[in-house]
Amino acid sequence: MTTKQLIEQIHLKKSFLCIGLDVDLTKIPSHLLQEEDPIFSFNKAIIDATHHLCVSYKPNTAFYEAYGIKGWKSLEKTITYINKNYPEIFTIADAKRGDIGNTSSMYAKAFFEDLAFDSVTVAPYMGKDSVEPFLAFENKHTIMLALTSNEGAFDFQTKNMEGKELYKHVLETSKGWKNAKNLMYVVGATKAEYFKEIRKIVPDNFLLVPGVGAQGGSLKEVCKYGMSANVGLLINSSRGIIYASKDENFANSAREKAAALQKEMQEILST
Amino acid sequence: MTTKQLIEQIHLKKSFLCIGLDVDLTKIPSHLLQEEDPIFSFNKAIIDATHHLCVSYKPNTAFYEAYGIKGWKSLEKTITYINKNYPEIFTIADAKRGDIGNTSSMYAKAFFEDLAFDSVTVAPYMGKDSVEPFLAFENKHTIMLALTSNEGAFDFQTKNMEGKELYKHVLETSKGWKNAKNLMYVVGATKAEYFKEIRKIVPDNFLLVPGVGAQGGSLKEVCKYGMSANVGLLINSSRGIIYASKDENFANSAREKAAALQKEMQEILST
Repeated sequence: MTTKQLIEQIHLKKSFLCIGLDVDLTKIPSHLLQEEDPIFSFNKAIIDATHHLCVSYKPNTAFYEAYGIKGWKSLEKTITYINKNYPEIFTIADAKRGDIGNTSSMYAKAFFEDLAFDSVTVAPYMGKDSVEPFLAFENKHTIMLALTSNEGAFDFQTKNMEGKELYKHVLETSKGWKNAKNLMYVVGATKAEYFKEIRKIVPDNFLLVPGVGAQGGSLKEVCKYGMSANVGLLINSSRGIIYASKDENFANSAREKAAALQKEMQEILST
Repeated sequence: MTTKQLIEQIHLKKSFLCIGLDVDLTKIPSHLLQEEDPIFSFNKAIIDATHHLCVSYKPNTAFYEAYGIKGWKSLEKTITYINKNYPEIFTIADAKRGDIGNTSSMYAKAFFEDLAFDSVTVAPYMGKDSVEPFLAFENKHTIMLALTSNEGAFDFQTKNMEGKELYKHVLETSKGWKNAKNLMYVVGATKAEYFKEIRKIVPDNFLLVPGVGAQGGSLKEVCKYGMSANVGLLINSSRGIIYASKDENFANSAREKAAALQKEMQEILST
């Protein structure tokens, strides 16, 4: 999917919501545990109930790897289901990968070719040659960690490196990498005031924003400082939507939570 | 496996060699491609031929994920084969994972419980709460990226942060994390002179050292500056050993390459 198509979808659906499919078997409705593939059954129900309210789904690979081959199968079935039935959805493999060049190429092959995701999240610690193999793919997007929403973000990301915070270095340095136009960045919602600074460095790139909802970030604050001329935001909510209820009507409850966020987004987009 | 057991194995085998199982189907002997699971067949032959010369195997997960479910099956078969037949081997999942706390717990479950690896590599960018879930596992080891062997290491890792290089910050900060005794670190061999500085910060921790061989690092130099009282080094070689030959006798060629490195290590250990 191209960035242009993503922006079109945002305006069409009046939503820049991304739903995180972080499926934990201990948290899903118990009646699903009898199914052959409970994770996929859960995802399918959530996707069918919410696809018109969001522009993106983001399975976090950890939640699938934890169940070994069965989990990897659930992941494959989920992405295949989305691509077949809702090809207008922007898919994100939240994998936070990154390794030396030839190894990153293998990860890029895994997520862009084998699983056919539109994008993958990567970690910046190993620098340019660990990220450029992902950037080399046409119409695929590489979403690099910049400023994350967790407490540990303050261990290194916000520390001063040669006159500015590490995350600013990461943003600025990456702008010079080959095919940098394919870069998006992860910026946590829990620090809305940082968005002003970030937009000075990357005025146009899309930002994937976790931390609204369960982690306490405010949608309005993030939009106030983070929105670009082309919206430029994908706001992720995982637990707040998918675990809205544990009963048989869980998908309806998820739809209601997603609809409430979509409505807020529609209001923001119209002003 | 405990650190004590690993050290015992090093002295028993007179080796601190780790063999990287980074299997690329385009690089293995062509006669294996007819097998049902070429990757596992390749690994099994390499392991059977070299297990007495090394103390550790390190499959890099990227090379398995690139082949989807089939690849994940090959990884599972490989680790199960090692654990069953050579339980004295220290196994490393080279996965470079790291995410917010509850997600890192899922990765830890994937590699320590589901796949039963002794250790996993992690990235430090997201800080304390992204690494501690791994450290919580008894007799399991978390190998954190400190100074990597690639060109991109100079993008951020060696830049000055509040008076010292970022990788030194990573080393020092992590010493204060819960269960820090379960930490090892990745330090590239291509920068032998750095080991002196690193040993001032972490005098005892094991260092996993890629970059000897294909990437040009010198074993003698690394040992000169990096060896601790308890050896404290795992020297990794991947391509230099496993792709020594593409003919039917590839496992013999791999054994010869491993034996040459083991012999060098034996000499170093005896002086």
